This record gives sequence, structure tokens and C-alpha cells, in this order.
Amino acid sequence: MSEAKGRVLLSMTSMHPKRWYDLLSADREVVLEPDGEADPNIDYAVVWKQPHGVLKKLPNLKAIFSLGAGVDHILTDPDLPDVPIVRVVADNLTQYMREYVAWRVLDHHRMGATYRSQQHERVWHEPPQPPAGEVNVGIMGLGELGRAAANALLALGFSVNGWSRTQKQVEGVATFHGEDGLTPFLARTDILVVLLPLTPATRGIVNYDLLNRLRKDGPLGGPALINAGRGQLQNEADILRALEDGVLKEASLDVFEAEPLDPQSPLWSHPRVFITPHAAASSDPAHLAPLMLEQMDAFERGEPLRNLVDREAGY
Amino acid sequence: MSEAKGRVLLSMTSMHPKRWYDLLSADREVVLEPDGEADPNIDYAVVWKQPHGVLKKLPNLKAIFSLGAGVDHILTDPDLPDVPIVRVVADNLTQYMREYVAWRVLDHHRMGATYRSQQHERVWHEPPQPPAGEVNVGIMGLGELGRAAANALLALGFSVNGWSRTQKQVEGVATFHGEDGLTPFLARTDILVVLLPLTPATRGIVNYDLLNRLRKDGPLGGPALINAGRGQLQNEADILRALEDGVLKEASLDVFEAEPLDPQSPLWSHPRVFITPHAAASSDPAHLAPLMLEQMDAFERGEPLRNLVDREAGY
Repeated sequence: MSEAKGRVLLSMTSMHPKRWYDLLSADREVVLEPDGEADPNIDYAVVWKQPHGVLKKLPNLKAIFSLGAGVDHILTDPDLPDVPIVRVVADNLTQYMREYVAWRVLDHHRMGATYRSQQHERVWHEPPQPPAGEVNVGIMGLGELGRAAANALLALGFSVNGWSRTQKQVEGVATFHGEDGLTPFLARTDILVVLLPLTPATRGIVNYDLLNRLRKDGPLGGPALINAGRGQLQNEADILRALEDGVLKEASLDVFEAEPLDPQSPLWSHPRVFITPHAAASSDPAHLAPLMLEQMDAFERGEPLRNLVDREAGY
Repeated sequence: MSEAKGRVLLSMTSMHPKRWYDLLSADREVVLEPDGEADPNIDYAVVWKQPHGVLKKLPNLKAIFSLGAGVDHILTDPDLPDVPIVRVVADNLTQYMREYVAWRVLDHHRMGATYRSQQHERVWHEPPQPPAGEVNVGIMGLGELGRAAANALLALGFSVNGWSRTQKQVEGVATFHGEDGLTPFLARTDILVVLLPLTPATRGIVNYDLLNRLRKDGPLGGPALINAGRGQLQNEADILRALEDGVLKEASLDVFEAEPLDPQSPLWSHPRVFITPHAAASSDPAHLAPLMLEQMDAFERGEPLRNLVDREAGY
């Protein structure tokens, strides 16, 4: 490995660092644990939920790389150094999310929960099935992942609407934005897909009031919720209440307010809730580590960093 | 209704004729039940599993219209008159089948059965997930429905292979054909989608020997079967045996040797079998009846009938 290459600090909690360490250290010197003292010889920090205070001890830090698409785990550090933050944008991650969203939308649309319950009772019965074109899927969050999900759903024949904080255009998608756009967006949505970033403005946004504004008389006999964004976007007590009183028909949840989901949570045993363990779109180190190393090399050749986070917006 | 318009006999069993009668009789005279005598005033027969012998009493019959994409229910009539048989080809039917196949392929690929079982046990665990591009979906039958399913799966990123009796080309799909092509096709298939017509050559084709030739060391830990063609393509005892001894990991079955599926069938309670009641792609009368009436009008203007069945091939 070249002496000209900047050194990397790898700091992660709730994930095992070994594979990342092996992949990154094949090309650059990697420090796994800070020793408590300031370290002026670290150029890059590669982080996932880093312990607060670790980054402020790196006086010559040039950039921070996030191990996931979301960066809320970085921005909540009160001592965050003022250096560029690079978000992981991997085709691989986008592909996984597109699969997950198409899978869950189709399962709600084609009444998977109803058929599983009928199978359990050995009942042979075909409920009315609307075609995809009569079902409105509403995507909250039109970043890289939201747009890829929208395109997969359009290809399957669904009607797709989108909502984002600021105005965005996506071909074939009816888009809404801001506070004013939220009510008309929700009013036409049969299946709500949440792919928002977690920011102070979006924390807890998926609450009873929001669910209660979804289309009630749609062709599926009630709305469905899919959250593949962040768990802290949702209020789980509100989701359960909405399921109980008929405001919400079904939910697919990949993320939770606290992870892993508490074994005592009533979500586990709810017959109309489908749970995956934050598995919609995993960061595969073998795919992502080379993308990070390439960005560091390019930066050292004087090229600009790509996929930078806007701290003001929070994503 | 014009006197110049030919009269229609509507003959169906195992489906209720009322909606078809209402829709067709809005434009033409429709006879619902033959009175046992020969009827020289019938021009068209619209049928679904017609009682054998009904059609031979129509000496001036000009064409037979099938209410479904499959025509095996017509061709098994030993007294079938020698007139053209028109198959229903509806965008609507194709759209439903595309949804069903994408839904079931994604559920096997994204390990729906595993996650449902883990949820039941309140287990938070993420098994390794291959991306779609590493999964080979093999489609048997490359007619209208098979090609539409292939395109939907390609758009989702899957690797798609196809097999048909005679050689066919589908863009983006590696195609195989005939007896010689079957073994290499099966050897690379992780998820097998059966959309074949039922003919003497295909009856019972999905047996233990065929399942045993699917790829065993693929990325999903064993192959999956999806049958949305005809129940009599499959041997259900063989499917159960293959599930038990590890030749087959999972199955989604929409069709069965006898329908409705016997409440005593062990398929109902098998944890790795997903059952729907011949609901993959229903013929919606409101969509199909106008297409039939248009074909009759065009025929009477001297235009050729479209989507004709090849009796020799059996589909």
C-alpha cells in the first residue's frame, strides 16, 4: 500500500467491523479503535453509528463516509467536524430496495395475507382482485431509492404518486411536495411506501393522523403501509391503533423505533403485519468498500467527492 | 341489435354464466342452454368446459371462442366441430399473470416463507440475500403470458431463461427448446415458473424427475416451483415427495390436479407451499366480452379471426 494514501479510521457500533476492516485495509492503513488521544494522522472516517466524540479528535480529517444510505446516525453527533460527508450510493443497495418495495407492494395488492389466512383454514375462495393500474401507490421520499422503487412499480403497471419535501419531477409519477401537498397525496394513496430520510422534520411523521388521511374507499378494502426508511419515522403505538380500528388494513415493516424489535412487541404476532429485520437493502461490504476506496483515490488525485450530504437538509 | 349479427351459444360449466350472458346479449342474441335438438341458427359458441356433445349439434357454427387463455377444456371434446377456435388474449389477463409471477418470484427470492416463520418465532435474523441478478428464473412456456412474465422479471433485475416446445426468441432471455433443451434449461434454474399449455405432451410434466433436475446449489438454498398454468401439468404426490426429501425448497401453486383442491390435501398445511385458488389471472367478463364481440363484428365484415388455436399443437 502506498505511503501517499490517507489513513482511515473505521468506527462502527451495532455492526461487526471485521469484513469492512479486511476489505479497506487491503488498500489503505486502517485504524479500528481510537486510543482516546487525538490522532492527527487520520484523513478519512468510515462510520456507522460512531460513538459521539470520536470524530472531534481527528484534527486533520478530510471526509466522513457513511456505511448506509441514511446519515442520521452521523448528524446527531454534537461534535461533528465540519468536513464533507459522503453517502453510500450503490447500485446494489438501490437494486435491493427496488426488489423489496416491489415484493411488498405486490403482496398487499395481491392479498397475500388474505390468502395465507384462507390457506390455514383450507378455504378455496377468490376475492375480487383489482388490476395494478387501479391501485395507487404513494411513495414518500423521491431520492435515489424512491425513484428506483417508482420505476419498478410503473413497470409492473401500478399508478404511482410521490411526495417529497421540495418539488421533484419523476417521469410517469404524479408528484406532490411540502406540507400543502401532503393531504392530497395521502387522500389518493392505497399503498404508502415510506423511504424518507430521518431528520428533525420527519421524525415520527408516520403517526395516526397521517395514516388516517390515506384513501379509505380504495379498491383493496383499506390502505397498507410499507416502511423501509427508518424506524424513527414511525410511531408504532399509532400503527397498532390504526390497524385495530380499521384506519389501516395491513403493514410491512422493515424498520422499527428500536432495533432489534423487542420480543414483547405486539407487532410480531399481528396477523396483518409482516416483519423483516432491517433487511430490505443491506450494505454488502464486498460491494461498497471498493466504491469508498475509489472515492478516496479520486479525492487524492484532486477530483471532487460525489454524493455529498446536505447538512442543512439533514440528508 | 342488428338482425345481420350472428347468434351466440353460451355454454359453460364450473363458472356462473350470468355476467357473460348480460354482456354478450347487449349486442347479439345469445342462447344460454341448448334444448337438446340440433340448432342451425347458432353462428358462434362461447365456451368454458362445455358439456361434450353440445357443439356437434350446431351444423352452421362458424367459430368457437374460449373464455380463458387455455383451450384444453375445448380440445378434449371428442365431437369437436372443425371450425376455428379463438383464444382470449386480453391485456388484462396478461397484466394479472405478470403481477402474479413477479409477486411469487419475489416472495421466493426474498425468502418470504423464512421471514414468516421467523416472525412467528419472534426471531430477528437476516439470512444472506443474493441480488436478483444472481437468481435464474426459468419460464416453461413462452407464449403471450410467458413472454410478459419474462419482461416483468427482467425489469426487476432477474436473470431469465425460457423453455418452449419449439424454438422461440425473447429479447434478454436465454431460450432453450424441445426435449434436448430441457435438461440444460432445468440445470440452471433456481425458480421454475410453469406457464405451459395442457396438451397430451405436457400432461404431468412437472413430476419428480423434472424437479430433480433443477439447480441444487443455487444461491437460494434450493429450487422453488411456481405453477400458474394448469393443474394437470403437475403430479402433486411428486411435488410433496420433492419437498420432503430436499429436491424442492418451496412451491407456489395456483392450479391443482382437481379443483377446488381437496380439503384433505397435505398441500394446504405444508409450511413451504403457498396456495391460491386458480386466481393468478382471472377472466374479467367486463373486459373480455367486448373483445369477443369486436372479433365477431370484424369477422362479419370479412376480416380474419385473430389468436387462433393450432389444434395440432394443442394450444
